[in-house]
Amino acid sequence: MSTRLSQLFVRTLREDPSDAEVTSHRLLVRAGYIRRQAPGVFAWLPLGLRVKAKIEAIIREEMAAAGAQEVHFPALLPREPYEATGRWTEYGEGMFRLQDRKGADYLLAPTHEEAFTLLVKDLYSSYKDLPLTLFQIQDKYRDEARPRAGLLRGREFTMKDAYSFDASDAGLDASYQLQRDAYERIFARLGLPYVIVKADAGAMGGSKSEEFLHPMEAGEDTFVRSAGGYAANVEAFTTVVPDEIPLDGLPEATPLEPHDTPTIETLVAYLNASEPRDAGEWTGGDTLKNVILALRHLDGTREVVAVGLPGDRDVDMKRLEVAFYPAEVEAAGEGDFAKNPLLVKGYIGPQILGSESETGIRYYVDPRVVSGSSWVTGANTQGVHVKGLVMGRDFTADGVYEVAQVREGDPAPDGSGPIETARGMEIGHVFQLGRKYAEILGLKVLDENGKQVTVTMGSYGIGVTRILAVIAESNNDEKGLVWPANVAPFDVHVVATGKDAVVYEVAEELVSALEGARLDVLFDDRPKVSPGVKFGDAELLGVPKIVIVGRSAAEGVVELWDRATGERTPVPIAEAVASLTAPVS
Amino acid sequence: MSTRLSQLFVRTLREDPSDAEVTSHRLLVRAGYIRRQAPGVFAWLPLGLRVKAKIEAIIREEMAAAGAQEVHFPALLPREPYEATGRWTEYGEGMFRLQDRKGADYLLAPTHEEAFTLLVKDLYSSYKDLPLTLFQIQDKYRDEARPRAGLLRGREFTMKDAYSFDASDAGLDASYQLQRDAYERIFARLGLPYVIVKADAGAMGGSKSEEFLHPMEAGEDTFVRSAGGYAANVEAFTTVVPDEIPLDGLPEATPLEPHDTPTIETLVAYLNASEPRDAGEWTGGDTLKNVILALRHLDGTREVVAVGLPGDRDVDMKRLEVAFYPAEVEAAGEGDFAKNPLLVKGYIGPQILGSESETGIRYYVDPRVVSGSSWVTGANTQGVHVKGLVMGRDFTADGVYEVAQVREGDPAPDGSGPIETARGMEIGHVFQLGRKYAEILGLKVLDENGKQVTVTMGSYGIGVTRILAVIAESNNDEKGLVWPANVAPFDVHVVATGKDAVVYEVAEELVSALEGARLDVLFDDRPKVSPGVKFGDAELLGVPKIVIVGRSAAEGVVELWDRATGERTPVPIAEAVASLTAPVS
Repeated sequence: MSTRLSQLFVRTLREDPSDAEVTSHRLLVRAGYIRRQAPGVFAWLPLGLRVKAKIEAIIREEMAAAGAQEVHFPALLPREPYEATGRWTEYGEGMFRLQDRKGADYLLAPTHEEAFTLLVKDLYSSYKDLPLTLFQIQDKYRDEARPRAGLLRGREFTMKDAYSFDASDAGLDASYQLQRDAYERIFARLGLPYVIVKADAGAMGGSKSEEFLHPMEAGEDTFVRSAGGYAANVEAFTTVVPDEIPLDGLPEATPLEPHDTPTIETLVAYLNASEPRDAGEWTGGDTLKNVILALRHLDGTREVVAVGLPGDRDVDMKRLEVAFYPAEVEAAGEGDFAKNPLLVKGYIGPQILGSESETGIRYYVDPRVVSGSSWVTGANTQGVHVKGLVMGRDFTADGVYEVAQVREGDPAPDGSGPIETARGMEIGHVFQLGRKYAEILGLKVLDENGKQVTVTMGSYGIGVTRILAVIAESNNDEKGLVWPANVAPFDVHVVATGKDAVVYEVAEELVSALEGARLDVLFDDRPKVSPGVKFGDAELLGVPKIVIVGRSAAEGVVELWDRATGERTPVPIAEAVASLTAPVS
Repeated sequence: MSTRLSQLFVRTLREDPSDAEVTSHRLLVRAGYIRRQAPGVFAWLPLGLRVKAKIEAIIREEMAAAGAQEVHFPALLPREPYEATGRWTEYGEGMFRLQDRKGADYLLAPTHEEAFTLLVKDLYSSYKDLPLTLFQIQDKYRDEARPRAGLLRGREFTMKDAYSFDASDAGLDASYQLQRDAYERIFARLGLPYVIVKADAGAMGGSKSEEFLHPMEAGEDTFVRSAGGYAANVEAFTTVVPDEIPLDGLPEATPLEPHDTPTIETLVAYLNASEPRDAGEWTGGDTLKNVILALRHLDGTREVVAVGLPGDRDVDMKRLEVAFYPAEVEAAGEGDFAKNPLLVKGYIGPQILGSESETGIRYYVDPRVVSGSSWVTGANTQGVHVKGLVMGRDFTADGVYEVAQVREGDPAPDGSGPIETARGMEIGHVFQLGRKYAEILGLKVLDENGKQVTVTMGSYGIGVTRILAVIAESNNDEKGLVWPANVAPFDVHVVATGKDAVVYEVAEELVSALEGARLDVLFDDRPKVSPGVKFGDAELLGVPKIVIVGRSAAEGVVELWDRATGERTPVPIAEAVASLTAPVS
């Protein structure tokens, strides 16, 4: 098939769109692949649709190879199943809700766990029907607070979502592995480097969870990795826990002289000046910082809680959100302190924290705060700190939460060495939902013994439109896009230049020859457009292989132009056809 | 490719779904093609998705052949463009509306005229860019009052909608014809008989408009046709208008003696008893019936209007709706009569109707009420009628509306003879939008002389999911579905019966041979299912060609089973393969 540029519905733009924050957005709009319709909502022009279709075809092939069957759910779904799982409320403002003419509640599905679960419940009833993996490629909706970055985070976007259904944990492990393998093949075929990181299951519930991250500067995720092979999302990183220390014989806690040291820095300076010790200088890591937070629960109630962590680390907001999900977390305000007069800002100590304490404020500590660890911390009196306050003896906590910042150089939990941090973009997510949805929605099958067992599920997602943007984001230069061959809108871009009729005749013949070899050809046949404009358009559109048919065409010579390297090679026409139609090694 | 029935996500049902009103809905659910998710909202199972994909592929091929380019718009669109064209309001309760987290108004698009118009405006600016025809295959939303009949009238449904853009009327005619031709090819390939009828453009505005109707009893449309080739939707049928009669010398209007004749029947009986005439018996057609209606305008105001038509015809509600669109029409109530005391029920005459009359009530007449036509009608006094009341002399109207019932035997407007009526289902609609949307949204291009001209548009729709249901509705028997080969989910359904291992070996070889010939094969490999159940499933699923591999397999003989005719023919295996893989003549 060939497409003539003179006929193609496209208009390349010289100017960057004013709302484009990232390169992929800028280039996809300038090259005429997409057009914005509303914040985070895009229309697909013919070029963009071709690339999207190629990505979808690769995903479909690999899903079929992994034994997954395609279905298709509506975007418009009734409230009830989402009410049953609690997600109608949990999704908060991120979900588009609407009513029909009768006042019945509907949503535009952000994900389809409920619908898949109910469909399988509807049709299947025996362990013999399982394992089963279903998938769809479908448009989803999330009312993002700040739709930005073009297709990287849209409000209407295309996803491949798959769900596996098994009667046993071992079955789920096998189904999970099949999808995980399929994802590796998909990203390899798409030419997208990836890191598989341990992830927190977050809003989805469930246990085993891994993200495929494409390392890139504009990525939204921070992940950590060690030279020894450990990789995890920051939210899923686990701290190496020090050994507990026997409480017997530990020195007593002693209050320090009152001083004005409201910050960790001033406190450490004071300690080194007034309380020198043999074990070396005091550091922030010797102090216990207690941070007061306010939770907003789903039912609208507000609760003050506290977290304790070594003073040399800040709280990581993303890890904090995960720890307290589904409640929303914010810093405590003046009102919260007013209601809790025992809290003395700058001098808060854990002696009065915890649900069993005087204040009744729930208190969670960093994993480093083990039993027997000893801390300098607040004494709950203006200007007074205490040293030698021991966990498990002088204070306790309601639990351990991973909310402290992760730092380069921290040890990987699997002993594979110190970690470094990097930025990446999530391009795929595989995780074991387990029985959460099946339990709530009643998806059970009869097992070998005729007993009802609850089905265990896996969930596997790839953002199709996001992937397209990620590929564009990682494959471009200052001139424009540079598509990998597998997803390029065309295999070859033939550019005829000049006004000589012979040139256009030769170009037509070349296009026919390439079509005959089943290549998709874009043919720049515009007679009144200058070579400079044509070359500029070719570079912007980003088809990887370009053939220039120009002055030497009469002598049977054309130029092969490699979009990625910029290299131009004059070759005889027959050779050009042979080289372009050669099977990819 | 082959699919094993033992693995396929399907469960056939013996019972009809309780909410299924039509055959296609009943069978598509029972055979496991679709599942209901909400009223008028369905999920697609693998079998259904295969048929849908085949229909879409045929449409895509014919759109490409007609020079149309594929794009894709979001379903979620902002309010503003629909506000500009008035459709935000006009669509009434039929449109799904919602707000995002910032309170901005959005809709789920029922059609995309505005979006296409703005996209072309966005990119193109010269007559040289035209003609242009764009299309998409996309999910649309309409909040139907009574979603019924399964996929025939859903609330979420897939459509192919195309729009053409031209700088001149002649260009639009050519673009229109290209799409019309493409539609003829599409329906031929889908094996769907159709009648092209003149249609009213209705809610869409515009002029030339034709519907492709598939004749079927369960169809929602009544259409008329003549033996001479005329065909029109009832809403678009035009009455043959009698010649006007000179007013000079017509007898004066005379009131009749008061009598209790509140209906047309009693009036006609009275006339024949008390006012015999030479021209034959009086009939209802000699009387002028004046019907009082109430309009509800878009701005919420209520207006009383009247229509006058020959007494032997009733008002046709659908024609009435079209005549007064976008206002909603209902019968006038007691309150309306109370506010208009001059209206005497049963004796209303046109002397007091019309915007220039005493009542100021707008008055529209049937096309048969020509100037000089003379009528028996009400005298606006209890019990009194008048005869010889002449249009153009004794009363006038604000306009002529086609709101009377169309009857079999009425003359076709093109002189091609009397019409008959039939039921059909709309499967396609082509029409000339003209400049309405381009005008409002400012889509202009520079013409040859450098002058701005408004673009003229055509709109071309096919309901993809509806077509699937129409095919199912017209291709089935008491046993199940009978798909035409072009859209069947598989080319061949191989059924292995019994428990003999040889049978399954032979069946596997046959399946491989058919796959080798690039056929899509459904293989019923279920070892523990009885032949009766397998045959029943094969008949329900409706793959047109079935091969039974049974007891004679060991002797190299299988049975070819034609789903449509029910004919079974024993043939040697080699012959079976040859016959099934022979190119369709």
